[in-house]
Amino acid sequence: MSAPDVVTLLRAALGERVDTDPLHLDAARADKSGHAATGAPLAIVHAASVPDVQATARIAHATGTPIVTRGAGTGLAGGAHAGPGEIVLSMRAMDRILEVRPDDLLAVVEPGILNADLNRALAAHDLWWAPDPASREISTVGGNIATGAGGLLCAKYGVVRDAVLGVDLVLADGRLLRLGHRSVKGVTGLDLTSLVVGSEGILGVVVGATLRLRHRVPGATRTLTASFPDVRRAAEGAAAVTASGIQPAIMELMDAASLAAVHRLLALPAPAPGVAQLTIQTDGPAATAEAEALTEILSASGATVRLAADDAEADLLWRIRRSLHPAMETLGTTLIEDVSVPRSAMPAMFDEIARIERDYGLIIPTVCHAGDGNLHPNFVFEGDTVPDRVWHAADELFQAALRLGGTLTGEHGVGLLKRRWLADELGDDQWQLQRDIARVFDPTGIMNPGKVFAP
Amino acid sequence: MSAPDVVTLLRAALGERVDTDPLHLDAARADKSGHAATGAPLAIVHAASVPDVQATARIAHATGTPIVTRGAGTGLAGGAHAGPGEIVLSMRAMDRILEVRPDDLLAVVEPGILNADLNRALAAHDLWWAPDPASREISTVGGNIATGAGGLLCAKYGVVRDAVLGVDLVLADGRLLRLGHRSVKGVTGLDLTSLVVGSEGILGVVVGATLRLRHRVPGATRTLTASFPDVRRAAEGAAAVTASGIQPAIMELMDAASLAAVHRLLALPAPAPGVAQLTIQTDGPAATAEAEALTEILSASGATVRLAADDAEADLLWRIRRSLHPAMETLGTTLIEDVSVPRSAMPAMFDEIARIERDYGLIIPTVCHAGDGNLHPNFVFEGDTVPDRVWHAADELFQAALRLGGTLTGEHGVGLLKRRWLADELGDDQWQLQRDIARVFDPTGIMNPGKVFAP
Ligand SMILES: Cc1cc2nc3c(=O)[nH]c(=O)nc-3n(C[C@H](O)[C@H](O)[C@H](O)COP(=O)(O)OP(=O)(O)OC[C@H]3O[C@@H](n4cnc5c(N)ncnc54)[C@H](O)[C@@H]3O)c2cc1C
Ligand SMILES: Cc1cc2nc3c(=O)[nH]c(=O)nc-3n(C[C@H](O)[C@H](O)[C@H](O)COP(=O)(O)OP(=O)(O)OC[C@H]3O[C@@H](n4cnc5c(N)ncnc54)[C@H](O)[C@@H]3O)c2cc1C
Repeated sequence: MSAPDVVTLLRAALGERVDTDPLHLDAARADKSGHAATGAPLAIVHAASVPDVQATARIAHATGTPIVTRGAGTGLAGGAHAGPGEIVLSMRAMDRILEVRPDDLLAVVEPGILNADLNRALAAHDLWWAPDPASREISTVGGNIATGAGGLLCAKYGVVRDAVLGVDLVLADGRLLRLGHRSVKGVTGLDLTSLVVGSEGILGVVVGATLRLRHRVPGATRTLTASFPDVRRAAEGAAAVTASGIQPAIMELMDAASLAAVHRLLALPAPAPGVAQLTIQTDGPAATAEAEALTEILSASGATVRLAADDAEADLLWRIRRSLHPAMETLGTTLIEDVSVPRSAMPAMFDEIARIERDYGLIIPTVCHAGDGNLHPNFVFEGDTVPDRVWHAADELFQAALRLGGTLTGEHGVGLLKRRWLADELGDDQWQLQRDIARVFDPTGIMNPGKVFAP
Repeated sequence: MSAPDVVTLLRAALGERVDTDPLHLDAARADKSGHAATGAPLAIVHAASVPDVQATARIAHATGTPIVTRGAGTGLAGGAHAGPGEIVLSMRAMDRILEVRPDDLLAVVEPGILNADLNRALAAHDLWWAPDPASREISTVGGNIATGAGGLLCAKYGVVRDAVLGVDLVLADGRLLRLGHRSVKGVTGLDLTSLVVGSEGILGVVVGATLRLRHRVPGATRTLTASFPDVRRAAEGAAAVTASGIQPAIMELMDAASLAAVHRLLALPAPAPGVAQLTIQTDGPAATAEAEALTEILSASGATVRLAADDAEADLLWRIRRSLHPAMETLGTTLIEDVSVPRSAMPAMFDEIARIERDYGLIIPTVCHAGDGNLHPNFVFEGDTVPDRVWHAADELFQAALRLGGTLTGEHGVGLLKRRWLADELGDDQWQLQRDIARVFDPTGIMNPGKVFAP
């Protein structure tokens, strides 16, 4: 069927929810990965209800038209990129909280609500949904689920996968499935909820979710920074923290290049050359005792430790970590990478990054969720498209992570940008099996085609 | 191919690992569910290595012979039942710990190791694998993974699904897949590790697992019991604990019938009629403070609370809960059920159980993991086979759990015993989708056929 006919069908079914404003279509070509589809999609459907999603899927199915589901478009893997001949299904307008149950520690929500908006509403009940991607103010809960997002707090409080009890999923043909349950435990049949978490829009559309909540952690937090003469020793310092059995709420590592860039941006005195830094937050009733114990452990492993006296000083210390993205923007265009390795391999992974920097003549400022071994190396370059040299360097980065027992992507997903490496990690047999499973959900291949699995 | 030929092929490939001792074959007809296959299986293969498993699968695949994978046979759903024409693949001999990494908080193990043996070995490193089914001394880690087992500590420390980073899976045709990763985080492709957890032997054979470990919790534990005039009020007491934000390590509820039966067995003074009891353990640095706070909360909700002064007294209190199974055996044969409901629905679920007791003239002593809403009603009857009346009562139990937003099975699985209710919970569309996914792993349907999905 020709493109105008598909739009006509959509309009007949969905009226004003069908958007063909060229500016909007143009914006839907891209997410925040810094890349974009070559042309504009057919139309954007702003779904306001589950039946809207089902109607869109039925038309797409009947006409063989691809659907690209879109949350807030903050993804870093190109998962929400939409191009010619594709329908964008925006979930942003489905943003209601349907139910909050403090007694069951659960909430039922629509997928388009922003993570931070949900958490502001939950705060009134003294509850929270723990997943806290740095993008929480701008990304949707549905997008967090579809990417299996992580965050800063997740070494202590878990990732999205740990915080979803069930999802409602609209299949490619418009049928609605209710996966999972409202009870904490349940092992009836195969765990399809976990399969949908991180599935990047290829299995179906998440139109609702039952989330597992937590009581807010009582008491004040404590923050400290530990400065090390080089990044390897900082990684070893993080390992000493893990070995101590104390679980910080947050433990972030900044290497010398990222620390220096931020100091420059914030007009702070330049750190000594090579200096890398851990920033750590403890929480709960033992926050102070733990912060003091960590101060000793880190001092003993050669760090200069500064324990913030109050919240104002703590804010200042966190401001440095939070300014990483803006600081990178001052250097050029950035490809944000996302490898994850077993924690013991962090020092070796930093050695590999240093090697790749030397071999390719690049600077790769790197920050790391040090509590769980998830590194974000930032490849910085000039101009709009990732140069081949950077892709070659990224390829070496991925191979190194796999060699060290790690993975291509700790939290951002595969999308378009990493699909060519997927089989390297999974092996051909598992790659094919995964693809065949996706086909069970979507036999005609209209859900986000070309994403995750290279065609 | 005829049965003797399959055994001949197995013997040629696996020699003495093929066991056709009639006594052993007879024992493999059953698990601990109190039911058994009508006849004996063909042979038991005692696999000692991954290649043994692959060789068995290849022969089964080539000859169209079903494989029933067996851990320790402690399952309560009939999942490991093996009958005529089937090969039993016993994993019990593959019981090595291949790697313990305190720095990465992970262990790599073979599937046949007993949960408690693993934890004794980990204790030397001050580490533990948290899943703690009451059967931990007698069940295998592979069986725990295949059933998605829960346990007493899981409201605080998670179920099996939260404690597995990766599994090695032999498919029906003998190919080996490595699913998951060694890093804490990872979202490369679909989460097949979670799909295998709880898959009850229908997707393939778990031949190895990478487990997520925890540091052992420091400090002594504290134990208290809270006695309530009736079970409804005990369930409300548990809700008050959850609402307080204090997370006990363990919170178990015993209704009047189970409490009375245990007191009789242990020759303790009979509790007042109707009295139900919570038994609670707190742990970690705040164990005493939390136990004292809970004492106040529970006293305020009408309970008589007893806080154990020392470990000896605590042991005595736990002995009551631990004696439930032996106490049930004094009453007759037991069908142990396993529904799970949202925590707020626990009082209503106990009302439903009371109604079913009245309607069917049964006694259904019930214990409950009250921290997560998982109830184990015990249907007690005379003789060897479950009477129809009990199945009808169980049917009402399942329907009530589903009505209350719960599930058929919180931790024991579907196996043979619950497959006829599976579609009631999943709906027909999801039932078919799950079956089709299983077929992707096992196109010819030789992995534990007839389990989970009714034929
Ligand atoms: C500054 C910044 C910081 C970030 N920090 C983090 C971080 O700390 N941790 C982290 O994990 N990520 C981070 N990200 C990446 C991104 O924010 C996350 O991947 C987020 O989960 C995406 O949500 P979204 O609503 O923007 O989804 P989108 O970008 O719109 O979509 C992402 C993918 O999910 C699919 N999808 C979206 N909604 C649905 C749905 N309802 N049903 C089915 N599929 C759907 C899309 O098709 C696409 O494949 C960051 C991004 C930025 C720009
Ligand atoms: C006294 C008692 C108390 C119990 N308490 C609990 C409890 O608190 N919580 C709980 O969850 N359960 C409990 N159970 C049930 C049982 O112990 C668990 O289900 C346990 O996980 C089963 O392990 P197993 O090694 O005995 O597996 P088996 O009974 O041998 O097998 C169980 C299922 O898993 C499959 N399987 C086993 N190993 C593998 C493998 N390597 N690869 C693929 N599939 C495999 C089998 O085919 C079967 O479907 C209890 C049982 C008893 C008898």
